[in-house]
Amino acid sequence: MKLPEGFLYAATYAGIRKVKKDDLALIVSETPASAAAMFTTNDVKAAPVVAAQRRLRATRGRVRALLINAGNANCATRTGEAVVEATTAALAKKLGCPVEQVIPASTGVIGVELDARLILNALPALTAALSPAGFTHVSRAIMTTDQVPKVACAEVPFPGGQARIAGMTKGAGMIHPRLATTLGFVMTDAAIAPHHLKPMLAAGIERSYHRLSVDGDTSTNDMVIVLANGASGWKPDEKGRKVFAEVLAWLLEDLAEMIAADGEGARKLITIHVEGARNEEMAERVARAVANSPLVKTAIAGADPNWGRILSAAGTAGVRINPSKVDVFLQGVKVCSGGVAAEYPEQELVEKLSHQDVHIRLHLHAGKAETRFFTCDLTEGYIRINGSYRT
Amino acid sequence: MKLPEGFLYAATYAGIRKVKKDDLALIVSETPASAAAMFTTNDVKAAPVVAAQRRLRATRGRVRALLINAGNANCATRTGEAVVEATTAALAKKLGCPVEQVIPASTGVIGVELDARLILNALPALTAALSPAGFTHVSRAIMTTDQVPKVACAEVPFPGGQARIAGMTKGAGMIHPRLATTLGFVMTDAAIAPHHLKPMLAAGIERSYHRLSVDGDTSTNDMVIVLANGASGWKPDEKGRKVFAEVLAWLLEDLAEMIAADGEGARKLITIHVEGARNEEMAERVARAVANSPLVKTAIAGADPNWGRILSAAGTAGVRINPSKVDVFLQGVKVCSGGVAAEYPEQELVEKLSHQDVHIRLHLHAGKAETRFFTCDLTEGYIRINGSYRT
Repeated sequence: MKLPEGFLYAATYAGIRKVKKDDLALIVSETPASAAAMFTTNDVKAAPVVAAQRRLRATRGRVRALLINAGNANCATRTGEAVVEATTAALAKKLGCPVEQVIPASTGVIGVELDARLILNALPALTAALSPAGFTHVSRAIMTTDQVPKVACAEVPFPGGQARIAGMTKGAGMIHPRLATTLGFVMTDAAIAPHHLKPMLAAGIERSYHRLSVDGDTSTNDMVIVLANGASGWKPDEKGRKVFAEVLAWLLEDLAEMIAADGEGARKLITIHVEGARNEEMAERVARAVANSPLVKTAIAGADPNWGRILSAAGTAGVRINPSKVDVFLQGVKVCSGGVAAEYPEQELVEKLSHQDVHIRLHLHAGKAETRFFTCDLTEGYIRINGSYRT
Repeated sequence: MKLPEGFLYAATYAGIRKVKKDDLALIVSETPASAAAMFTTNDVKAAPVVAAQRRLRATRGRVRALLINAGNANCATRTGEAVVEATTAALAKKLGCPVEQVIPASTGVIGVELDARLILNALPALTAALSPAGFTHVSRAIMTTDQVPKVACAEVPFPGGQARIAGMTKGAGMIHPRLATTLGFVMTDAAIAPHHLKPMLAAGIERSYHRLSVDGDTSTNDMVIVLANGASGWKPDEKGRKVFAEVLAWLLEDLAEMIAADGEGARKLITIHVEGARNEEMAERVARAVANSPLVKTAIAGADPNWGRILSAAGTAGVRINPSKVDVFLQGVKVCSGGVAAEYPEQELVEKLSHQDVHIRLHLHAGKAETRFFTCDLTEGYIRINGSYRT
């Protein structure tokens, strides 16, 4: 499958990480692209997040380049803003664009000063390496505790051709429905104005990143941004935009699912499906309560069909469920019927729960709303990864 | 130190647990005692919780006995209510009191039918064993994944004598500020009417059990109950009640601290102290956000002074903190000043963080309110305990 036209990518090692692994990445659109983005809701926002928000307002959503580093969040630092200014200004000069059209993004440790010189010194090598094929290099350079790079792409046919959309994301810990240390970069060569792009992104995020939890923590640096440069020549009308929005949402769901599956220490992807809620908020709160329960997540890690923990977690959502109506299914097997144990083949179910994909379904029998939510099991690996000194 | 007068205790093995370890316990007041209680807020409430709430309303807070079992939560079961009725009626008959004056309490696995016959068969041995010295037996019988029994007692002097107060509690996992699988039983021989006892308990819980989190999960079976039988002959006036309320709150704080220290898999008790909040709610929400962050808890487990995670967790509390004003102290050492790194002796601090008691202090510089919150570190032990099949 081909990547969207008109984008160039590069990654290099600038010396920000201790280990020698690419830590600086660049995505450039050959022409200014329409852009829409969503950011962390944490009160503590990293300098690149603050700058990105300001710049997207200033340009009303025009972006030439994304300058991304891993290994340092550039958050809670004295020099954060100055580092962003210096590095993006140098890049803008090289690209011949206004500095406001360069969007910075960072991920890594919080509270350690980021040395701008490391980035400035690496910029010549970085820009020299720009090529359409650099896509996978960038997807690897933005990894932190991720075990695998996370990319997805799709094609959207239109009369006489096709537009392309490709995305990459990172994130394995500190992941929570409200966008947590996750970076997501989506490029398309469709031509879509920022004011159309924004609601598409918001709707897609609602179905994907906002239905995702690894550990309930929300980061300081999250950003998901979509760039649309129009290089395919396709400028969709209202009907075309609907199709495009669906494809975008599907791509974001795909990326979010990859994050949950690669949760720190995770061995299993857990999909939680809540049905029969009075409204979507109720469904979402129940799903989130189950997804955030360490007792549920450790039970799944241990292949234990301990549905009582699932029912109990649902009861803490604060949405007045009626326990005596709730059915719970594990891997499609009904384990709880009307709030009490159903008859099920215990040993067979234990075996089914040892699969990598675990499906929890709750039917609340209170209405017609439903939702899906992604999380992962909680294993000793999570503790190992996060308990070691200054991870 | 002597226990309150006029209470008898007993514990025995009824066969509810698989391992042969006392699982049925009884606390009897020789005369009907004033009682006040607080219960879980989970929508999913165990049968004994529902019965206890109904009975305390019916008697307006008169209690003769507490009948407690471990090994089975009697929650999400078909026969839950009938089991409660049958077992407490049989006990009431033996004690010669109305059934409404017997309060049931259960802890253990959810969703498995509890066999009433096990309890009925054990009642003769249980009542025969009643004695003032059975206090510690009961405190051991109610343990589930607890490593140690948790008891506290105090004396309240009054002109011409002293009243006594003694409490026991259990709980190590599924612990959350809103009373989670915790049972707490507090006995006193002071004479205090239920309508005075209730606000005292509520105020004490607010300072203790509601400032406690192990894993963010809230159980279906929680109950903390205070019995006051007046056997000391002391009927405090308003001033006396103030003193008593203080002692009660101190005792509850003591018990809550023991729960946090004995959190499943925990090696460290973490005390979080939030100062300089605009109001108490702000302080409490920031403290809770830090206490519930798995990233903070794993960092403390690893003796990692990763204050960025603490600041980031505080930023997720949803109370609009100003990060550039926040100071963070670890073990009394300032690690973050005005939202950025302070100068501190790193290696020395790592050593200090390997102690069993860890103190996190945040100053928000937004006002004068403050709070304390208890939690524990998150270790591989938690995963081991909860991931094993049907714990």
